[in-house]
Amino acid sequence: MKKTISLLSLFLIVAQGLFAQQKPKYIFFLIGDGMGLNQINLTEVFLAAQEDRNTVFPLVFSTFPYASFATSYSLSHGVTDSAAGGTALAVGKKTKNGVLAMDSTGKIAYKSIAYAAKEAGLKVGITTSVSIDHATPASFYAKQPNRGRYYEIGLDLAASNFDFFAGSGFLSPDKNSENKSVPSLFPKFKEAGYTLAYGLSEYNTIKEKSDRIILMNIKGSDKESLKYAIDQEPSDLTLEQITASAIESLTKNNEDGFFLMVEGGKIDWASHANDATTTIREMLDFNKAVKQAYKFYKQHPNETLIIVTADHETGGIAIGNGSSRLQTKILAHQQVSQGELSRRIAKLRAERKTASWEELKAVLDDNLGLFSKVKVQEEDEQLLRDIYQKSFVEHEEETSKSLYAIDDKIASEAVKILNRAGSISWASGNHSAAYIPVFAIGVGAERFSHKMDNTDIPKKLADIAGFKIEQ
Amino acid sequence: MKKTISLLSLFLIVAQGLFAQQKPKYIFFLIGDGMGLNQINLTEVFLAAQEDRNTVFPLVFSTFPYASFATSYSLSHGVTDSAAGGTALAVGKKTKNGVLAMDSTGKIAYKSIAYAAKEAGLKVGITTSVSIDHATPASFYAKQPNRGRYYEIGLDLAASNFDFFAGSGFLSPDKNSENKSVPSLFPKFKEAGYTLAYGLSEYNTIKEKSDRIILMNIKGSDKESLKYAIDQEPSDLTLEQITASAIESLTKNNEDGFFLMVEGGKIDWASHANDATTTIREMLDFNKAVKQAYKFYKQHPNETLIIVTADHETGGIAIGNGSSRLQTKILAHQQVSQGELSRRIAKLRAERKTASWEELKAVLDDNLGLFSKVKVQEEDEQLLRDIYQKSFVEHEEETSKSLYAIDDKIASEAVKILNRAGSISWASGNHSAAYIPVFAIGVGAERFSHKMDNTDIPKKLADIAGFKIEQ
Repeated sequence: MKKTISLLSLFLIVAQGLFAQQKPKYIFFLIGDGMGLNQINLTEVFLAAQEDRNTVFPLVFSTFPYASFATSYSLSHGVTDSAAGGTALAVGKKTKNGVLAMDSTGKIAYKSIAYAAKEAGLKVGITTSVSIDHATPASFYAKQPNRGRYYEIGLDLAASNFDFFAGSGFLSPDKNSENKSVPSLFPKFKEAGYTLAYGLSEYNTIKEKSDRIILMNIKGSDKESLKYAIDQEPSDLTLEQITASAIESLTKNNEDGFFLMVEGGKIDWASHANDATTTIREMLDFNKAVKQAYKFYKQHPNETLIIVTADHETGGIAIGNGSSRLQTKILAHQQVSQGELSRRIAKLRAERKTASWEELKAVLDDNLGLFSKVKVQEEDEQLLRDIYQKSFVEHEEETSKSLYAIDDKIASEAVKILNRAGSISWASGNHSAAYIPVFAIGVGAERFSHKMDNTDIPKKLADIAGFKIEQ
Repeated sequence: MKKTISLLSLFLIVAQGLFAQQKPKYIFFLIGDGMGLNQINLTEVFLAAQEDRNTVFPLVFSTFPYASFATSYSLSHGVTDSAAGGTALAVGKKTKNGVLAMDSTGKIAYKSIAYAAKEAGLKVGITTSVSIDHATPASFYAKQPNRGRYYEIGLDLAASNFDFFAGSGFLSPDKNSENKSVPSLFPKFKEAGYTLAYGLSEYNTIKEKSDRIILMNIKGSDKESLKYAIDQEPSDLTLEQITASAIESLTKNNEDGFFLMVEGGKIDWASHANDATTTIREMLDFNKAVKQAYKFYKQHPNETLIIVTADHETGGIAIGNGSSRLQTKILAHQQVSQGELSRRIAKLRAERKTASWEELKAVLDDNLGLFSKVKVQEEDEQLLRDIYQKSFVEHEEETSKSLYAIDDKIASEAVKILNRAGSISWASGNHSAAYIPVFAIGVGAERFSHKMDNTDIPKKLADIAGFKIEQ
């Protein structure tokens, strides 16, 4: 009988493991905007190349026990935008490009996984490295027929009842989508119970006594986004700090778990500009945010689920543009983003109207390593020199436009030269239809083992956690 | 006590499911040469686009319960070739580009998973849509310091003791790697016990009484590869037929299972030529081969493991080259491969030396849909016309070279125009460093749930099947 009992105990242990429908108490949903599989691979190849290793140094999420991929087309387009992509990830439904958490007619509103988590009693945090009202974060709390309705998105935030928001700021706090002056969002946020924290030190002074927080860049700095990682100084707010602050705030006096969305929003921006080094630095910045989630997971492995995914790929980037020997190592010579380089060139033009070609070359050398560290082909130098002639000598405006930046043409052409030399090719300055990556670890992660659609991700998540996203 | 017994029985059933180390008896290892994730995605998008659906129609393997990806760099290069890539998949070790199943010095030979399967008592089949001595299939049975040693690779085949080979033929059956005339491989194959079958009907006449078979293209046809799927006529040997024949032959009078490698070898060739439609048709052809494996799996679900993967991506293809509206539907206007179009243009040039530009336009229209079905920009037409002028009027040779083809320049430029119009971009005519896809279904498939290295694939396979690949 003793043997029977011990077998029975073993059976019960096994059965518990098998049949217990354990739900994750802590859910991290990390989204790399524009982060295709090639953006991940490039970063891993680049890291190894810095140590002259012909291998890869993996990012934390690419070591997760489940790694798969998903389709990302929207209801209206083969290539999604961040609104339809964010909506698919937030509510589990396809909509047309431009729409936030509504059907394509903009009449029926959908319930996001964040609202479902809130209903289930979890605290909710929505964070990003761009403006809080941008398409990806907004998909989780707003319901708007058009992603450009920034003021109305802000009103949705005030009504969301969520617990923590963070990002650079708000794009249109006192003008509505009809461009009319309207009462500022900020008092409305306060009325809704939020404490506004401008910068990390302000957050640190208010965090103890505030239950609801909106963390933003310090006043007077860029409301459109955090600085690119490559351009950041030690005092700048980072996505890693935002993630750590969100975890800290959502776990304070809270035994009921949380749902935290973290967006690395500028991988997309850097890829729109076809700026490989800045893309890599954004990837590493996003990886630091994921590391914060992973650190938490290691402390609560049986209660935590981490999903890392993307809304779409940006740029159609390829690693390898002809030769089998990759030269990604040289991308590290780039010291600043294309945008910052544009500003430096503009400054030179403004300050020294008669700046010589040699002076401009020195700027390109200092910032990209061109000429002294990276060989520039004669025809490429001629191209740069022709643009210099037009913009510095003949004072014609020479710019290059991507979705999130108007850059100096010399800067964008010089970055193109560095990218080509660094074995990188881009298909366009827009998104592509490439599969998006899906990584998972923790409670329920095994559900993410196969190729899926982007809408499956929140559906699976809701199913694992027992949330209801269907109205 | 009755209850205890019934619980005990349940426990035993559960324990059996949990702890039984079931090994797959039938192993399919299907390799799409050059098949990156974007080649798969493009094919799925293209299929849906033919029915004006803005979604995807999945290939059979992309519905498998495990879908992940792997790194593919070789020991020597960031971008692998098919020899080092094949070696990684066959033996689980990195080597330098160009080497087959040996270390990078070409001194130490490695044991492939196919030899390990043979040792374990399984029958072994090695099949491909290109020549049987090509790098990918050769990695499984040959051990050579250089992939170009076709004669010596053939000698390794004769000594392999494997049961079934198929492909187009042999590249150098009577000249060795020093370019010396040597005794033909074919009698040696016969001496080793192989029956040679040229074409499917010959195979059908010999299959009953032959235990070891080498199935090839009919005599006098191309020994380098099967025809591109897009160019095939009903009488041509196909990869699907090869796969079905291999299964038939390997299961005849055999209770001990099999290991079957099937390579879709010309996805790579079409992508080297940056020919999207031909790539898609090759993908669909490869999918038909996988369907044969899947049909077998459904008959033996508890004894079969199917792995579908690739050695590397070719071309750095991207889907989406600017617009969010994809135009992949129009790629279907292409009726023949770029190579076949080149032959047709060459024929026109040879037969009608004074062929007019309008006559050539008609050829491009008939074969690619250019002009009447696909709008051609003025500058693109001018480009084609300039090449026509040189090659038809001034009789200068105008060719375009990719790894496996020397194509007519008009053909390659016309295909480029169709590709651009069809939303396709290519980074180069070489391989890229993109992750390779890994799909799995069946016994042990759950081991392929996470991102891995290409060398992990045969190691996991060996582990699941109880094979020994380490010497």
